[in-house]
Amino acid sequence: VDGTDLWLGIDLGGTDIKAVAVDCDGRVRWARAIATCAPEGRDAVVARLLSLMATAAGEVAPARVRGVGYAIPGILDLATGTVELLTNFTPDWTGFGLKDALEQGSGTPISMLNDVRAATVAEQMWGGGRAYRNFICIAIGTGIGGGLVLNGELYFGSRGAAGELGHQTMDPDGPRCNCGNYGCLEALASGYAITRRAREAIACGDVQLAELLGSAEPEPHQVAEAARQGSAGACRIFDEVGTFIGRALANLVCTLNPEAIVVGGGISRAGDLLIDPIRAELARRTVVFSRERGGVEVLESPMGGQGGAIGAAAWALRQSADLATWTHVS
Amino acid sequence: VDGTDLWLGIDLGGTDIKAVAVDCDGRVRWARAIATCAPEGRDAVVARLLSLMATAAGEVAPARVRGVGYAIPGILDLATGTVELLTNFTPDWTGFGLKDALEQGSGTPISMLNDVRAATVAEQMWGGGRAYRNFICIAIGTGIGGGLVLNGELYFGSRGAAGELGHQTMDPDGPRCNCGNYGCLEALASGYAITRRAREAIACGDVQLAELLGSAEPEPHQVAEAARQGSAGACRIFDEVGTFIGRALANLVCTLNPEAIVVGGGISRAGDLLIDPIRAELARRTVVFSRERGGVEVLESPMGGQGGAIGAAAWALRQSADLATWTHVS
Repeated sequence: VDGTDLWLGIDLGGTDIKAVAVDCDGRVRWARAIATCAPEGRDAVVARLLSLMATAAGEVAPARVRGVGYAIPGILDLATGTVELLTNFTPDWTGFGLKDALEQGSGTPISMLNDVRAATVAEQMWGGGRAYRNFICIAIGTGIGGGLVLNGELYFGSRGAAGELGHQTMDPDGPRCNCGNYGCLEALASGYAITRRAREAIACGDVQLAELLGSAEPEPHQVAEAARQGSAGACRIFDEVGTFIGRALANLVCTLNPEAIVVGGGISRAGDLLIDPIRAELARRTVVFSRERGGVEVLESPMGGQGGAIGAAAWALRQSADLATWTHVS
Repeated sequence: VDGTDLWLGIDLGGTDIKAVAVDCDGRVRWARAIATCAPEGRDAVVARLLSLMATAAGEVAPARVRGVGYAIPGILDLATGTVELLTNFTPDWTGFGLKDALEQGSGTPISMLNDVRAATVAEQMWGGGRAYRNFICIAIGTGIGGGLVLNGELYFGSRGAAGELGHQTMDPDGPRCNCGNYGCLEALASGYAITRRAREAIACGDVQLAELLGSAEPEPHQVAEAARQGSAGACRIFDEVGTFIGRALANLVCTLNPEAIVVGGGISRAGDLLIDPIRAELARRTVVFSRERGGVEVLESPMGGQGGAIGAAAWALRQSADLATWTHVS
C-alpha cells in the first residue's frame, strides 16, 4: 500500500472479524479476516481485536491511517461506546465500555456504529445509495437488519435503534422470532428461515430437494444452488421469502417515500432468485405510489459482504476532524 | 379578536371547509366552517374558499393576519402548489394550480400542505408532539393517513408523499382498498372499515348490535356508542381495528425508533375503546424495544378535529419570514 490516506474499518461478527483499509474513494486497499472465537469470552475477543489493529498498523504502513471505525452486531450507547446488547456473544459484554477499552489498548481514537447502520453508510458513500437523498438499506443475512438515510443523513431515531426492519410483524401467528415476538420478517425470511423452510420441505416429502441438498441443515447458499439446479421446492422458498421482504419494504415505501432500496447481506447473493419476488411484491403493494410518484429503485449492494467493515471505515472518515478531505470526496 | 398577530388556517375537506385563526401560542381565536359542495366542481369550490378568506379578513380585524395556510386532502406538488391528486373531488382538480389561483384571487401569499402532514405540524408545535424530536402522527378518519417528525423536522420523503401510513399491507388477502391494493390498514381499520364491520356483524346475526345501531350504514361514532352501551360485537370491532393499527405502528416503531405516537382524526374520539387495543398490540409486538429502549408513548391528539386547520396556520407561521416570532414561541 502506498502513501495515501487510509481509514481502517473493523466488523466484529459472531463468526469472523473482518478488517479493511479503504482510501478516500472507498477502494479496499488491504483486507484481513480472523475468527472471532466468541465463546472464549470478552477479554479474549478484545485481545484479538487489539492484535488485529496492531497487524493493520504494521501491514498498511507507510500509509497514514487517518481513522479507525468499528461495526458492532448489537445495540450500543452511541454517546459512550458502551455495549447494551450483543447477541451471540458471552453475557459479560453487556454494559462493557468497548470503545474505552479499545482506545486505551491501542492508543487510538475510535468511532463505533451498529453493523447494519455501518453497511448503510457504506452504501451511501460508495455503494448503491450514492445517488439518493432518501433510501432504505436492508441487510439479509442470518438475521435481517437495516438502516435509513433520510434527507441525506443516516437516521438514528430516539435511541440510535432505528433500522430494525427485521422485527416488523408480517404474520401475527407466524413462527417465533429470536426477539420473543411471533411472525417477524426475520423469522420468516432470513438465512435461518431459509434453512428452516428447506428442512420443512424435506420433512414434507420433497425428495428432489432432499437429494440436491443432502443435508438436514442446509445453508441458504445451498438452497439457492438447488433452486438454480431446478428444484421447484427451493424456488418456492425464495419466492415466499422474497414476497415477505417485498411486502415489508412496500410498507416502508408508503411511509417513507424513498427513492431507492439497497439490498445487501449474505443472502442477497442469491441475486434474482430473491430480487425478482421482492420487486414483484413491491409493485403489487404500492400501486398508488408506483403510478403517481415514479416508484422506487431496487438495487443490489455492490459491497460483496464487506459492507459492515467498509462502512465502519466510512464512518471513521466522516467522524474524523479532516472534514476538508471528506468534502473533497463527496 | 384583539390586535395580536394571527395566522389563518383553512382545511379543505371533502365535506366541510374549516377555517381557524390562531395566535402565536396556537390558541384558536376565531373559527368558521362551511360546506365544501365538492360536486359543484372546482371553480365553485375555489370561489367559496376565496369568499371564506374575505370573511375571515373582515371578522378577525383589527388583528393582523400574518399568514395564510391551506391543508389539502390529496397529493400536491409542494414546489408549485399544483394539485396532483384530490380524491373525492371532481376530476378537473388534477393538474390545477390551486396555490396560484388562491393567491391571485385573494392578493395574499399562501402556504400549502397535505392535510395530515398539516395535522402533524399542529401536534409538533402545539399538541401531543411538543416534547419529542421523533414522533409518528396517525390520523384515523374516513381514511388513514399520517405524518412523521424526524430529528425535529416534518419529514417529506423524496416527493413529499411520506406519511401514507394507511397503505401498509396488513393482510395480503384482505379487503380491497381505495388505492387498488388489498388488505391495506385503511381498508381494515378506518372509519369506513368500522362501518363495514358493523354491517357485516349485523348481517351475520348480531341482533343486539342491530337494535343499538338501528341503521344499515352506521357511522363509526354510533358503533363506539353501541360499544359503550355494552354491545360485545361493537367492542370486538374496536378491538380488531385497534389491533391492526397497533401492529402497523409497531412495525414503524421498529424501523423509526420514535419517542412517541400521537393518535388523531375523527375516529380517535372513540378514546380508550381504540387506544387500549393499540397500546396492547404495540407492547406485544415490540418486545425487545420496550425492554431495552424505554418503549414509546401513545398520546391522544388534543386538537379535537381541528388539527388540519390549526396545522395549516402553524405551517403558515413557520413559512412566514417572521422567524423571530416563531423562535419566541418554541
